[in-house]
Order: sequence, then C-alpha cells, then structure tokens
Amino acid sequence: MAAARWVSDDNVALLTDLYELTMAASYVAHDLDEPATFDLFVRSLPAERAFLVLCGLEQALDYLEGLHFPPAALEYLDSLGIFDRRFLDRLATLRFTGEVWAMPEGEVCFAEEPLVRLTGSLVEVQLAETFLLNCLGFQTLVASKAARVALACGERSFVDFSARRDHGADAALKAARAAYVGGAAATSNVLAGMAYGIPLSGTMAHSYVMRFGDEAEAYRTFARVFPRNATLLIDTYDTEEGARIVARVATELRTEGISIRAVRLDSGDVAALSRSVRHILDTAGHREIEIFASGDLDEHVIAALLAGGAPIDGFGVGTRLGTSADVPSLPVVYKLVEDVTGPKIKIAPHKRTDPGRKQVYRIEDPSDPHDVVALEEEQPPAGGRSLLEHAIAGGRRIRAREPLAAIRARRAEAVERLPEHVRRLGSVEAPYPVRLSAGLTALIERLCMR
Amino acid sequence: MAAARWVSDDNVALLTDLYELTMAASYVAHDLDEPATFDLFVRSLPAERAFLVLCGLEQALDYLEGLHFPPAALEYLDSLGIFDRRFLDRLATLRFTGEVWAMPEGEVCFAEEPLVRLTGSLVEVQLAETFLLNCLGFQTLVASKAARVALACGERSFVDFSARRDHGADAALKAARAAYVGGAAATSNVLAGMAYGIPLSGTMAHSYVMRFGDEAEAYRTFARVFPRNATLLIDTYDTEEGARIVARVATELRTEGISIRAVRLDSGDVAALSRSVRHILDTAGHREIEIFASGDLDEHVIAALLAGGAPIDGFGVGTRLGTSADVPSLPVVYKLVEDVTGPKIKIAPHKRTDPGRKQVYRIEDPSDPHDVVALEEEQPPAGGRSLLEHAIAGGRRIRAREPLAAIRARRAEAVERLPEHVRRLGSVEAPYPVRLSAGLTALIERLCMR
Repeated sequence: MAAARWVSDDNVALLTDLYELTMAASYVAHDLDEPATFDLFVRSLPAERAFLVLCGLEQALDYLEGLHFPPAALEYLDSLGIFDRRFLDRLATLRFTGEVWAMPEGEVCFAEEPLVRLTGSLVEVQLAETFLLNCLGFQTLVASKAARVALACGERSFVDFSARRDHGADAALKAARAAYVGGAAATSNVLAGMAYGIPLSGTMAHSYVMRFGDEAEAYRTFARVFPRNATLLIDTYDTEEGARIVARVATELRTEGISIRAVRLDSGDVAALSRSVRHILDTAGHREIEIFASGDLDEHVIAALLAGGAPIDGFGVGTRLGTSADVPSLPVVYKLVEDVTGPKIKIAPHKRTDPGRKQVYRIEDPSDPHDVVALEEEQPPAGGRSLLEHAIAGGRRIRAREPLAAIRARRAEAVERLPEHVRRLGSVEAPYPVRLSAGLTALIERLCMR
Repeated sequence: MAAARWVSDDNVALLTDLYELTMAASYVAHDLDEPATFDLFVRSLPAERAFLVLCGLEQALDYLEGLHFPPAALEYLDSLGIFDRRFLDRLATLRFTGEVWAMPEGEVCFAEEPLVRLTGSLVEVQLAETFLLNCLGFQTLVASKAARVALACGERSFVDFSARRDHGADAALKAARAAYVGGAAATSNVLAGMAYGIPLSGTMAHSYVMRFGDEAEAYRTFARVFPRNATLLIDTYDTEEGARIVARVATELRTEGISIRAVRLDSGDVAALSRSVRHILDTAGHREIEIFASGDLDEHVIAALLAGGAPIDGFGVGTRLGTSADVPSLPVVYKLVEDVTGPKIKIAPHKRTDPGRKQVYRIEDPSDPHDVVALEEEQPPAGGRSLLEHAIAGGRRIRAREPLAAIRARRAEAVERLPEHVRRLGSVEAPYPVRLSAGLTALIERLCMR
C-alpha cells in the first residue's frame, strides 16, 4: 500500500495504538468479545482551568459510524505476523454497532464526569479508544482555552490565527472549529471556513509592505483591491508613522469611496502604541478605523490590555490558542466501567474510575450550583438537568448534526450561567463541585468491600 | 461542497491564512506577481532547546509539488465575494514552479539559519507560507524533543506512545514519524507503522486485566495469543504482586514454549518499583523478562531514573513527546529576503531578517565548532559543509525520497557530532555559535545605511 500521506475515512481505523488491536485479538481468540461499557472522562482539571468546554463529538460520532477496516488495512495487519486469520476476519466485517451517550458539544464540563459513554462489543469499544481520546481531547482543549480568551475579551472580538503553529494539518482545521465553538468570531484558516462555515478574517503580512517599500503605496494598492474590509498592518517599520500614513491614505481614498476597516499592531508595546495610534487616527478624523492587535496574545495579555484601557477593538490570537500553550494536553482517559460480569471499579492513589453506567446532572441552584454523577437507573436529583444524551443507537446516529452556530451559542450560555468565581481567569480557588449520588456512592463502597 | 472532514491533497491548498490569498490577489491585480525569495527559519531557540532537528521536509515538498486549487476550492473562494475573476483564473492554473533549497531531514539546525528557502513567483511562494510553517514547525518540534529523550535514554530505547494526546489525527501520524526520526525505536500508532514503515510496539491496558479480574488468567491468555512478544501491564492492582504473578505465569508457560518479553510499570514510584520488580523477577529465575516504564515521562524524568540506577530497559513516552509539552511551539517564521528590487532586510527590536539568498555552512572545527550563514554567491568558508541542498527545481523534486531510516541515522550522527555542552539536557549555557559571513555582514550594513 502506498504511504498514507493523510488520515482519511479509509485508514483512520488504523489510527489506534497497537495494544488496542492486540487486546482485541486476545478477546476474539478467547471468545471474550462480549458487551462492555467505557467512560471517556478527564481525570483532573489542569491548574489553570476551572471548567472545560466539550468539543469534537461530531468528529467522534463520524468516526464511530464509519469505522471499518478496508482490505489494505487488513493486509498491513496481516503482514505484521502477529494476528491470526480469525481476528482479521472479524476486523474485515467490523462496524460499530453499539450505543453512545454523550454531552452535547459546547456544554461546560468538569473532571471526573463521564463526557462520552460507549456500550458495545468489547472489541468495537476497545478499538475506538485511541481515536476518541485524540479527537475529543484536542478539540475540548482548544475550545476550553478559547472560552477563556472570550471571557478576557468581553465585548471585544477575537479571531483564530493559529493555523501556522498548530500541530499538523488536522489540528489547524479542528483548532479553528474548536476556537469558534469556544468564542472566536472568525478564523484566518480558509479551509476551516469552507469546511465549517466559520467566518474568515485576514489582514496582510510584513512581506506585503516590504514588497512595495513605500508604505502608502502598499496600503493604497491593498485597499483598492479590498475597498470595504482592508486591515492594514502598520508595524513593518515604525508603528506610529504607519498610523499617520494610513490616516493620509484613508483620507485620500475616501474620494474613491474606499474605506479602511482597521489597522493591525503586531509587535512592540501594544498598550502604549494602541493609545498613540488611536490618537493619530482620531486627530486625522478617522474614528471609524478600528485597531486590531496580534502577536503572542492569550487571555491574560488581553485581560491586562483591556484592564489598562487600551483602545483595541479586536484581537488575533494564534499560537497560544491553537496549541493551548500553557496546558497543551488534557488528562483525558477512557476506562472500562462495566462488563458482562457487572460494574467495574479501579482504585489507585489519586485515581479512581467510578463503576457502572452513569448519567451527569447539572443543578443550577444559585445557592449551591453543582453537578451530580449518578447511576443511570437512579432517580434524577431534584432540579437536575441531565447532560448525557443518547447520540448513537445500534451504531447509528439518532440525532441530527448540530449547526456549529448552535454549539457556539450553547457554550456562550453555559459559560454565562457558571458561578462567577468559576468564570474568573486566575488560579482556581474553589473548584466547581462534582458530587456522587447516593446510589453511586453505595456501589463504590460495595465494590471496594469485596 | 460537502464538509471537508479531513485535510487531503484535494483541499490542502486552502489550508492557508486568508491574508495569503488577499495579498496574492493584490499582487495579481497590480501585476506584481514577480519572482521573490522567502526564508523559513526559527527566530530563536526556546530556553530548553540547545539544538533542533529538522523534520517534515518530505511532506513540505509533497505539498509544493502537488499544490493546486480544484474547482470546489475555487467555488468556495468565489463565494466569499472578495476575489475577482482574474485572480481566481490565476489560481485555477496555479502550480508551484519555483526552486527550493533545504536542509535535509534529520540534520541538526539552529536559530537564525535559513532551513528552507523558496524562490518563485510571489503568488506561489506567498500562498505556501501557512502550510510550510505548520508542517515543518510541528515535525521539527517533535523530532527535536525526541532527540532530547534519546539523549536521556542513552543505550536504552524508547517508544512513541503519544497518539491519544497528540493534537488531532495528522499530528498523531506525523508525531510518530518525527519521534522516530528523533530517536524513538518504535511507535504504538498502527497507521504510522503502515504509512512510514516504523516498527510497532504495544502492550495492554488496565481494562484488559480488569476484564479478567484474575491477573494470572489475563497474563496467560494474552501470552498464549502473542507467545513471543507479550508485554504485561502489572500495575492494575498492586505492582509487586503483579510481578510475582507474572513470574509464576512465565514459569508455567515455559512448558508451552511461550516466553514473556517484558512487564510494564505505568504508575507509582517507578524508580523504587523497578528495583523491587527486578528483584522479584530475578529471584524467580526470570532475568530475561525486561522492565518497561511509561506514564508522564520525558527526558528529565528518564535521565533521573537512569542516573538513580533504576533497572529499566525501555520507556514509553507519550504526551510530553507528542505535544512537546514544555515547548509546544517553535517561533518558526517565513520571511521575504529578496525580490525583483533586490535583497530585503527587516529590522525590529530583537528581530532581524537577514537579506538575500543564503547558504548555511557547518564548520566542525573541534576548537571552534560553529555555523556560518553566507550569501549564496560567496566563497564557502574553509572546511565548511553546506547544509542547504537543491530539493526542487522548476517545481519538481530533483532528489529521490529518502528512506526514514536514513533520516534517522543522519540525526543520530549529527547529534553525536555536536559539542558536548550542546548535547546536555539542562538549561543552555553557551549557545552553539551561528555567525554571519563577511559578505552577508557587508550587505546588512549597506542596506541599513540606506
């Protein structure tokens, strides 16, 4: 088989750790391929995250619905010389035929809550582990970071500029999606615009200005091609001088019916420069030209700029958003919680996997907001809104795909309804409470006594 | 067009920032689509990186050779309502027709050196910026991290376990490739094994042991399916007890001609546990069973374990390798250095882009090892080995694709030849010197005097 240059529907079944396949082979060899339930959850919240935003479910469900091993994949597995014919035959006809319960995308979630729950043949649910962790972990990571940037921005908007620093091509596509869910107003990534209908935003690079040498000529040329939405980069040589040139060019182009939308600051002391640039533009009669800032921004830098009164209208956030630079991974895990022998528990120092099929309830009691993790069969707690929805039944989606705008709106509302201290950007003082129901507590005690 | 679920050859041309397209449109509109040269380089080395390992060139060259805008891409761009027909027509026939000079993959490199140099039509080289930065930046990031892990491991081997925590699907594929180039002996990622011929490695998960309840039965079952290369996870309940059970099972299975290859420790005090487990195995007559450790490892943890004499034979390194967790991005940039008006320079505080078409020379003088960045037309410095090779001429590759093993060997040799202090893992004391040639220095002075 030719080298797989890209991951695609035709080879994604192999995007799995070898051990998923060796374990599955052992289950098949010993007739242990019976129903089992796995929970996908986050072990603990990173120090700087008081909440997470679930994201990536759409792609996870696509994966499960499409899971199959094409002949080329089977040939490769055969060539490894470690799998027998019976197992390869099982893979040849394997489809995901189980059940999925999941929180909807855009929902706020916390550690130790099942986010996605799979029930199905042990082989089917085991093989899915690696991809599900990768897919949901990464998008949740970026959506959660973006939600923090959105909190810092308040009324201002921000744009995902991360494509060039994201980890590979798929990350660039999915980071733009997750950033939009988390609150970005747009992305610079054209493919993400096409794939997901995300609004696009773009300015110009220093090389453009350098190509002309003369800044006025660069700005004029660009604005004539994009007469209504040109954002001009003014820090190639001297930012304040750049602002003066833009003001002159903007006045001159008015006679041609062309308006400059914004100037962009990408370096230097952005707080001070935004003030002097605002003054230069205002003095020249160009209050309508907005100031857009970019360059090593994150939620803390933006919050500090705005707290200091920097007159900045929008932000381009790249590297630190798309790589979630302060927290570049989440401790997302996928654990067996039930099999044919009953609910399963695993206890290790600082780690516990709660047994059984569970539901998560959010209780928005103003005096005591909290979530409850309960056994599925338990009576829901009073006032509790259940968060896990039945997404796939018998291997097929039973809900319509959600428009990304609806997911984005869910995130906005869910974040808005969080207790104020959970929405704060600093270090987490009091974690949002996630409690166990009486039934789950009793089950844990029973299993531990064994 | 249907949503693009994956990046592929058919849509990767759109994996670009919108500004690349708006700038290109302006160049086309104003007949400025003339030859230009861009350098791709790293602005500065992160605090914990004394050297980098170039990686990702193969995919970058594939991208350039295949660059094209299919009808669906053009339709989408047209639908944005900001591009005129002339520009869209240019894109419809656009191919990369220029020249690429690049360091070979696996070569050690440093900040402020051109790693890849593109010369071609301004539109062609501009559009490639975003993808090239993404592709080369990420793989170089991971290969560089892996090279540090390899230095920590010394004679021991390590395996890439990162797939589940990498940033999306493409990152999982490319991280395995880059980790292998950087020194990993294998990967757990089956798709990477198929795509690149990387050896595969896998063990078992806690859920497997839990499925059986009885550890002995779990080990026996697994080993019978994989009679020559079973690595058994022994920390599901109690690590030392797990080791005793493995020892008993291994003795028992000897009569069936089955051998256990290794046990895996994935939690707890790995240093202490590795000693007690070694003792348990040795006492039971199983010196042949190796100890493999995983769980939140990186070069520092591994170096400390081995410095303390932990009897560990191999390591599984995941999250911190595949996300380069301490340094999750590189400041890799792509800058105009020459156009039809001549060499270009850009100077800003702490940032300078060196002008002109350049070559990099490595001078392995034991008393003064250093690199020299020189103008292409200059006489090479005495004893200097040129690092930039002509990779694409007139839009076509002029070198055969390299086997990954050759790239991996180049890295091993290049790292081995580095001065000892550059190979140390701690904070960087004296950066490896990268000097400018007399000709380049004179050109910079001349351009600054203007």
